[in-house]
Amino acid sequence: MLKVGIVGGTGYTGVELLRLLAQHPDVELTAITSRTEAGMPVAKMFPNLRGHVDLAFSEPSIDVLGACDVVFFATPHGVAMKQTPELIARGVRVIDLGADFRIADPAVFEKWYGLPHSCTDILAESVYGLPEVNREAIKKARVIANPGCYPTAVQLGFLPLLKAGLVDASHLVADAKSGVSGAGRKAEVHTLFSEAAESFRAYGVSGHRHLPEISQGLARMSPEKIGLTFVPHLLPMIRGIHATLYATLKADAGDLQKLYEETFAGEPFVDVMPAGSLPETRSVKGANTCRIAVYRPQGADTVVVLSVIDNLVKGAAGQAVQNMNIMFGLPETAGLTQIALLP
Amino acid sequence: MLKVGIVGGTGYTGVELLRLLAQHPDVELTAITSRTEAGMPVAKMFPNLRGHVDLAFSEPSIDVLGACDVVFFATPHGVAMKQTPELIARGVRVIDLGADFRIADPAVFEKWYGLPHSCTDILAESVYGLPEVNREAIKKARVIANPGCYPTAVQLGFLPLLKAGLVDASHLVADAKSGVSGAGRKAEVHTLFSEAAESFRAYGVSGHRHLPEISQGLARMSPEKIGLTFVPHLLPMIRGIHATLYATLKADAGDLQKLYEETFAGEPFVDVMPAGSLPETRSVKGANTCRIAVYRPQGADTVVVLSVIDNLVKGAAGQAVQNMNIMFGLPETAGLTQIALLP
Amino acid sequence: MLKVGIVGGTGYTGVELLRLLAQHPDVELTAITSRTEAGMPVAKMFPNLRGHVDLAFSEPSIDVLGACDVVFFATPHGVAMKQTPELIARGVRVIDLGADFRIADPAVFEKWYGLPHSCTDILAESVYGLPEVNREAIKKARVIANPGCYPTAVQLGFLPLLKAGLVDASHLVADAKSGVSGAGRKAEVHTLFSEAAESFRAYGVSGHRHLPEISQGLARMSPEKIGLTFVPHLLPMIRGIHATLYATLKADAGDLQKLYEETFAGEPFVDVMPAGSLPETRSVKGANTCRIAVYRPQGADTVVVLSVIDNLVKGAAGQAVQNMNIMFGLPETAGLTQIALLP
Amino acid sequence: MLKVGIVGGTGYTGVELLRLLAQHPDVELTAITSRTEAGMPVAKMFPNLRGHVDLAFSEPSIDVLGACDVVFFATPHGVAMKQTPELIARGVRVIDLGADFRIADPAVFEKWYGLPHSCTDILAESVYGLPEVNREAIKKARVIANPGCYPTAVQLGFLPLLKAGLVDASHLVADAKSGVSGAGRKAEVHTLFSEAAESFRAYGVSGHRHLPEISQGLARMSPEKIGLTFVPHLLPMIRGIHATLYATLKADAGDLQKLYEETFAGEPFVDVMPAGSLPETRSVKGANTCRIAVYRPQGADTVVVLSVIDNLVKGAAGQAVQNMNIMFGLPETAGLTQIALLP
Repeated sequence: MLKVGIVGGTGYTGVELLRLLAQHPDVELTAITSRTEAGMPVAKMFPNLRGHVDLAFSEPSIDVLGACDVVFFATPHGVAMKQTPELIARGVRVIDLGADFRIADPAVFEKWYGLPHSCTDILAESVYGLPEVNREAIKKARVIANPGCYPTAVQLGFLPLLKAGLVDASHLVADAKSGVSGAGRKAEVHTLFSEAAESFRAYGVSGHRHLPEISQGLARMSPEKIGLTFVPHLLPMIRGIHATLYATLKADAGDLQKLYEETFAGEPFVDVMPAGSLPETRSVKGANTCRIAVYRPQGADTVVVLSVIDNLVKGAAGQAVQNMNIMFGLPETAGLTQIALLP
Repeated sequence: MLKVGIVGGTGYTGVELLRLLAQHPDVELTAITSRTEAGMPVAKMFPNLRGHVDLAFSEPSIDVLGACDVVFFATPHGVAMKQTPELIARGVRVIDLGADFRIADPAVFEKWYGLPHSCTDILAESVYGLPEVNREAIKKARVIANPGCYPTAVQLGFLPLLKAGLVDASHLVADAKSGVSGAGRKAEVHTLFSEAAESFRAYGVSGHRHLPEISQGLARMSPEKIGLTFVPHLLPMIRGIHATLYATLKADAGDLQKLYEETFAGEPFVDVMPAGSLPETRSVKGANTCRIAVYRPQGADTVVVLSVIDNLVKGAAGQAVQNMNIMFGLPETAGLTQIALLP
Repeated sequence: MLKVGIVGGTGYTGVELLRLLAQHPDVELTAITSRTEAGMPVAKMFPNLRGHVDLAFSEPSIDVLGACDVVFFATPHGVAMKQTPELIARGVRVIDLGADFRIADPAVFEKWYGLPHSCTDILAESVYGLPEVNREAIKKARVIANPGCYPTAVQLGFLPLLKAGLVDASHLVADAKSGVSGAGRKAEVHTLFSEAAESFRAYGVSGHRHLPEISQGLARMSPEKIGLTFVPHLLPMIRGIHATLYATLKADAGDLQKLYEETFAGEPFVDVMPAGSLPETRSVKGANTCRIAVYRPQGADTVVVLSVIDNLVKGAAGQAVQNMNIMFGLPETAGLTQIALLP
Repeated sequence: MLKVGIVGGTGYTGVELLRLLAQHPDVELTAITSRTEAGMPVAKMFPNLRGHVDLAFSEPSIDVLGACDVVFFATPHGVAMKQTPELIARGVRVIDLGADFRIADPAVFEKWYGLPHSCTDILAESVYGLPEVNREAIKKARVIANPGCYPTAVQLGFLPLLKAGLVDASHLVADAKSGVSGAGRKAEVHTLFSEAAESFRAYGVSGHRHLPEISQGLARMSPEKIGLTFVPHLLPMIRGIHATLYATLKADAGDLQKLYEETFAGEPFVDVMPAGSLPETRSVKGANTCRIAVYRPQGADTVVVLSVIDNLVKGAAGQAVQNMNIMFGLPETAGLTQIALLP
């Protein structure tokens, strides 16, 4: 049994990690820390966990966390990079669900996140935890940067096109839509029910922190220079991301459906749907699956890709558990076989 | 492995049964029938099942169903009572998620459901499948009437009070609210998104088919004559029932919290929450749990009980699986340990 | 043209007042104050007002407000009672949409609101602004306590029964459900979209501030002692209140439908629906109407009343404008003829 | 007073027309027809109209409709083109909210709508009723093709760019999202609450009937050949369309904000928001307004336009009333000054 610790479990990523880990056959939950909620039983804050998780939030303690096999950080950026050095020094593996290790270039990180990176050496050795791209490196990693939610949906959607060199990489468009849980559990006016329900809007059009992360990932798939327009939108629903991707084919593309099926053949958590399918976000609600469909409308030279995930699962906690499974040689699907809740 | 058949799996109860049974360690899904959809892969209609359920809908066949250990009916009323005699003659156990065996008195059944009962002998031997009340009888039953969704939430809520004889049984009030999935997957105007969202209303105030079922259940808990006012309402959400129950205490009631905790001690799927709790329907979304809280506001003689379930799980498919587990001597919680999805 | 000021217009009650007053034929909006937002154009915070309201929020100023004919307070409790004395000294009429003047007994006010009342003389002369009960007094009032949202729906629903002395006043039940906008525009975790959507729960079961207000109102309708159990619930929608009321008939009640129709005959904003109707909250969304239906299920001695309002209109801003119209001798419906938005 | 008739008023476009026309100062509602609902009071089907509209649905009658000044068709395609010839022969103006007169080329109409056009001469003289483009022609028209909802949002959004010749017209992308009311009030499984809530998906990716309508409109704005990729999506909300538009700038574009402001200067129903704004669909809920923002993210050569409307108002009934006002020389804003409902 793996001893698992969680730092900062009071948000939606935290409760989702707990839901998945509490049902994982090879995991023993050892500690979940929260400075502000120390002493409160986890199941009091998240009543769905009553009868499943007996832990209470505890003060962060290097001794307790240092005795774990793996520690997940479900914290705002800036926390993981402070605590990771001491943990890996003690032989603990780290999976950061925040942004601290996602951007390889410290200058880019500082530009978008507004603080300098404090452990660039660890940053250099950390691995970007998108298993469909980096599985071998993940196996040996000590520190995993778990991808952001939008970046997961967008990168998986563009991957076959860029790897095959079929599209103009300089004019990619990702029109992405996320449920409100992506904004976290912090009390803010713009995510109040009465503000976010029965309405829809874009945000971050001028620039969103996931833009450099996605661009970096796409650049690794293609020798061409990446030009990406990324427009996120806020959906009046709780869970789910739908990325609608547009690219211009450079030449005859051949059978795109086959390309997608072959690219993801054998991937346990990517489902290329039959031609003509329309992936619904609810088809992955609570599940660690990315479902994808590819179109070439009216036979023109614009290819359209539809990619859906649950932002809290394949877009966060589920992918983190998938990374843990890979790192520790467990079956990659261990603890991740839940069927999406529909309706 | 139990061989399991499902008759009529194209509705929400059907897909929920499939979700639970596909993850059940002791079940082999043998057949799922639908006259209208025969030939269609189940996972095409319900894409959340892609990769988990390979079956296609098939024409109903007594030979196929007759070879099962247990057959679930997820059909409108009138279907199960036609097919059950032949199935039990072949030694198949039957669990009807519809209403055919819920009402013991055939005359009452005919009054509320508008058709005569066609197998009153089987009706007489059938068992009302509310495990918290009837566990011993369920073990030996050949035919189970799986309770309705409202009746489950309301009966469990009133049970401690009526068993203890604490309240005036002649003036009970059940103000119940259900998510829209309770109305099923049939195309009807009043359950369209644009009709049911951002609105709330009562229905069936003059009389609802769950009224006689609840009254019959409550009558079995108390020697007094039952007088129940039952008002169901339609909530602008998909899953969940919240029953708010009101009764007048006949005398000093003692410690109601303790009464509830003792009544349900050892019940795996009833969670009496700590005093002062406010059960949320989302705390049981996707789980086979009924959470209950009991209040005596302002110290007056009116007791208020809050009872929540997921109408498709403890109110339908989950309770059906629980009944199956009991009938076949499996652990009662087998296949039913999912944690509710929150948020 | 009436010169109108608003104190504290950054909440939902404030924007709703602006929506109604901007379309009122006899009103000139003079000032809207907010300490925290002074200088910000109102239409920047509430973009629905772009092109309709040119005002910016301003610092509160007694000189500006003192030059108005009427000032609305859309503030938390405690604010209006501080500023009202000076305003009425300058001849300004005051309509408080908060709670400061709703509870006649200062001791009861202090118990439920946690602060002593600072102007009990004005409290004594203030009028509870429920026009269907108090129209004559409103005409002459200098200070109006605009009723709370739940109290409006519940009092109008019980009024005919209590006035006629038909029910046992000591065991009334009000099971009330409100959209999330009733909780205001303050950033709080429990009203976040991801907390309040796809879920339903009760709150304030042990005691809610609207309980003493409702009880006081009901007591004025009946010589009997009032015993009320009031359970509010949070609906996963923005606007609307549905109160489901239960009472036990003392004797033969006669024609309840006729009683309700006669009681509210001539009332411009109470619509007694035909027998058998099921009022939907959406049928009053954005409108100043209370729709009511009355039932006697199964012919038993429990009467059920369904009463719906828009909590922000008849439950707040609309009723406030209605009170203004009455106070200034305008047609009672001036500026209040909007048709509800459906769907 | 204009005498107004409505053919087919049982859908959402119909009730919205009624809401607007009942409050229009210059309109007298004369008849509203429905074969299936003849005899039923309109306010029984749509209770928001109680007290505002006394009409009952009536059988279609050429004599009644022929006595109107203007008749609105809120019918499926194929109906208006049958009845329009007789109406205009009697001097009645016709505004078709359906698709019969939207596509100028009968062959294109037949291809997308599956039936031949039955009155191509009237089609030839009919005017596409997008006032911001066709105001002068609308004034003199006998027959108006009221634009579709998506086409309104998309055409207004692209108009300044195409008129100015700034973008590559051959690779336009319109990623559009609509609330469920756009699918109408017909009972269908995919628009049930339990299907459409808490989920999001694209549809019609291979080809949607609004594609040829939009392409035709864009072609009228630009001498270049139009290549448009149009992907509509279904939002889990009732009202509102958000079109996110992408185009590649051909050369330095100058000040796009200024271009948009100048293009729509004086337009009563197009609101170009300040630079950096994020139009929300709720800011136009119930209002006849299109709000637009324009961006050039990261200073690259992709321009992004955000365009929001209420699909039932500026996207249907409101625009139809606007066309009526123009046709009859009324103030263009008559009856259309409602403020959007927020929250």
